[in-house]
Amino acid sequence: MSRAFNFCAGPAALPTAVLERAREEMTDWHGKGLSVMEMSHRSKEFVSVAEKAEQDLRELLAIPANYKVLFMQGGASSQFAMVPMNLFRGEPGGYQADYINTGQWSKKAIAEARRYGDVNVAATTEADHFTSAPAQSELNLSDGASYVHYTPNETIGGVAFDYIPETGDKPLVADFSSSILSEPLDVSKYGLIYAGAQKNIGPAGLCVVIVRDDLLGQTIAGTPTMFDYKVAADAASMYNTPPTYSWYLAGLVFEWLKEQGGLSAMAEINGRKAAKLYGFIDGNDFYANPVAVNNRSKMNVPFTLADAGLDKTFLAESEAAGLLNLAGHRSVGGMRASIYNAVSEDAVDALIAFMADFAQRHG
Amino acid sequence: MSRAFNFCAGPAALPTAVLERAREEMTDWHGKGLSVMEMSHRSKEFVSVAEKAEQDLRELLAIPANYKVLFMQGGASSQFAMVPMNLFRGEPGGYQADYINTGQWSKKAIAEARRYGDVNVAATTEADHFTSAPAQSELNLSDGASYVHYTPNETIGGVAFDYIPETGDKPLVADFSSSILSEPLDVSKYGLIYAGAQKNIGPAGLCVVIVRDDLLGQTIAGTPTMFDYKVAADAASMYNTPPTYSWYLAGLVFEWLKEQGGLSAMAEINGRKAAKLYGFIDGNDFYANPVAVNNRSKMNVPFTLADAGLDKTFLAESEAAGLLNLAGHRSVGGMRASIYNAVSEDAVDALIAFMADFAQRHG
Repeated sequence: MSRAFNFCAGPAALPTAVLERAREEMTDWHGKGLSVMEMSHRSKEFVSVAEKAEQDLRELLAIPANYKVLFMQGGASSQFAMVPMNLFRGEPGGYQADYINTGQWSKKAIAEARRYGDVNVAATTEADHFTSAPAQSELNLSDGASYVHYTPNETIGGVAFDYIPETGDKPLVADFSSSILSEPLDVSKYGLIYAGAQKNIGPAGLCVVIVRDDLLGQTIAGTPTMFDYKVAADAASMYNTPPTYSWYLAGLVFEWLKEQGGLSAMAEINGRKAAKLYGFIDGNDFYANPVAVNNRSKMNVPFTLADAGLDKTFLAESEAAGLLNLAGHRSVGGMRASIYNAVSEDAVDALIAFMADFAQRHG
Repeated sequence: MSRAFNFCAGPAALPTAVLERAREEMTDWHGKGLSVMEMSHRSKEFVSVAEKAEQDLRELLAIPANYKVLFMQGGASSQFAMVPMNLFRGEPGGYQADYINTGQWSKKAIAEARRYGDVNVAATTEADHFTSAPAQSELNLSDGASYVHYTPNETIGGVAFDYIPETGDKPLVADFSSSILSEPLDVSKYGLIYAGAQKNIGPAGLCVVIVRDDLLGQTIAGTPTMFDYKVAADAASMYNTPPTYSWYLAGLVFEWLKEQGGLSAMAEINGRKAAKLYGFIDGNDFYANPVAVNNRSKMNVPFTLADAGLDKTFLAESEAAGLLNLAGHRSVGGMRASIYNAVSEDAVDALIAFMADFAQRHG
C-alpha cells in the first residue's frame, strides 16, 4: 500500500487506520457475513454501530444531555435551508435572523436564509477581502432576530474566529464543517451546530447536527418532513434510511480520535502543525498568507507564491512529490493546504520541505 | 471470508465482487495514494468515476438523451417532497396531482405531497389490504393534475404493477426504489423516475433521479436550493459536495450489471428466482403469499407461516443457517425475502431448501 499526503479541503484525508479497518470489515463485519452497508438500519447490529458513534461523539465534544445529536442526509448546503426553516420564530412575513459574513460559506448561508425571511448582516469583512473576522464589538445584532448564524472557520479563505460570539438570549448557530473535532468546543454556548462530514468526520453525504432540544418542534410552512429536526430527533435519525455506511465510518473516526487522546490531544497536534506551516510561510519571502494573525485557520492554510506564474509548476511538482490537492479554491486561486485531523505532522513537514526546496529553486 | 445469504429489504445485499473491488481500492485507488472517499469531487479522478457511472447507467437503462440523470443526496423520502415542489404547475393554492395508492410507500408519498397541494387518489387497493395493483381501467385521473405518481413495486407489500400506466400528456412519476435495474425499462414512458440507492444500486444516502429535461426549471415558492432538480442538473449533481463514495459504489454495481449481461440477463435470472420461490410457496400448505398472481413482486416476496406462533423460531433457525433478514416489515409482520439483483440463485435455492425442511419439521 502506498499513501500520498492529501491536503484536500474536502472530501478530505481520512486516517489510514480507519480506512484499513473499514477494508478489513468490508465484506464481513464482525463475522456476521455481511458488510455494514448491507445491514438493515433497524438491525441490532447497525443500531449498535450507530449508538456507539453517537456516544463517542458526545464524549469527545462533552455534549450536554439537553442537546440532540442528529446524523442527517446531505451536507452543509442542506442545512443552509434547514436552519431558517426550523429556527425562524414569529409570524410569516416577519421572519428575521442575524448572520455574520466572513466569506464564501457565510454568503451561501445568507443567500439561502433570505429565501425564507430577512437577514441582517450583523458584520461583514468583505471590504478587507475576508482576511479577518469581526470583533465582538463590531457585531450589530438586531432585536428581532430569531437566531445569530456564523461560520467559525471559513474553508476557502482560511479565516477563523478566535472567540465565540456573545448573543445574549438569541440562539447562536454555527457552521462547523471545517473545524469540528479539531479542538475542544463548549457546545453549551450554542443553540445549534452543524458540520458536513467530509472534512473532519467521514465521507461526504452525512451531516452531523447538534441542537439544543428546546429549539425543536417549530418549523415554517412548507418545510419538507426530511428537513424537520424534530422528526429526525424523534426517530433517532432513522425516520428514513440514513446514510448507514457513512455513519459507520464516522464512528470509526470518533474511535480513532479517542485513541489519539481526544480533542485536547488533537488541539495540541493541530496547533503544532499550523504554527510550523504559518511560521515557515511568514519566514520565507517567496510565500505569503494574507489573513490577520489572530484569525488564521488552523485547518485551512491558503498561501500565494511571489510569482503566480509559477502556480502550475508548483502544483505539478508537488503532486509528483506525493503532496496532493494543494490548489486553492477555484473562486480565489493560489494555494491552500488543508491540514485536518487526519493530516499528520509528517505530511506538514514534507510540505514545508517541498516548499523550501521549491522556493530555493524558483525564488 | 464468509458471506451469508442476505435477504434484507434495504439497505440490501451488494454483489460480493463489488465489495471485494471496493476493499481492494479502499486505501489506494488506482495507485493514486488515496481512497475515492478522500478525493475532491471536482478532481479529474473523481469526475471520471462519476461520469463513467452515469454513462453506464444510461447504457443499462437505454436512457434517452433528453433525460437528465441526477445523483442526489438522501433517499426516496426526500423525493416525496422534491417531486411536488418541482412538478406542481399552475397557481399557488391550486396545485393538484394524481397519486395511485398501492401500499405504505405510496401513502408516504401522498402524505408529503399533500403538504404542498391537493392529491387526488386516482386508485387505491387499501380495501384488499394492498394485495393487488389497480388496472388501467380503474384509474380515475383528474384533468387538473400536474402529474401522476405511482409506486411500480411496493417493497413492504411485495406488490408490483404488471403494466405502465397510461397518463396521456400528464408526466408519469415513479418511485422505482425497489425494482430499478431488475429488468429493462422504457424510460421514455416516464416524466420522472427516482430510486433510493440502497436496494438495487448501492449504499444508502444516494438517490438516482432520471428526469425529462422539459420538466426542469419550475419550483414552487420555498423550495430549498438543494431540492431544485434544475440546480442539480446544471451542476452535474455537484452543486454541493455529493455523496462521492456512494456514487463510486453505484458505479461499481453498474459495471457489475454490464458484466452480467445487462438488464435482459438480470430479468431472466430474477424471473427464475421469483418463479422458484413463489412456486415453492404455492405448492406448500405451510406457506402462503396473499398477493394477486399477476401483481407479485419479483424483488420482494412476503410470506406467512401456517402458524404465526412459529415466526420467531423460523427467524432464529434461518439466521443460524446463514439466511439473514427474513422478518417482514414491522408494519405487517410475517416473513419477507427480498431477492434483488445481488441475491444469487444459490441464495434462493438455499432459502427454499431451508423452508422445505422447516415445514417438514414443524408442519
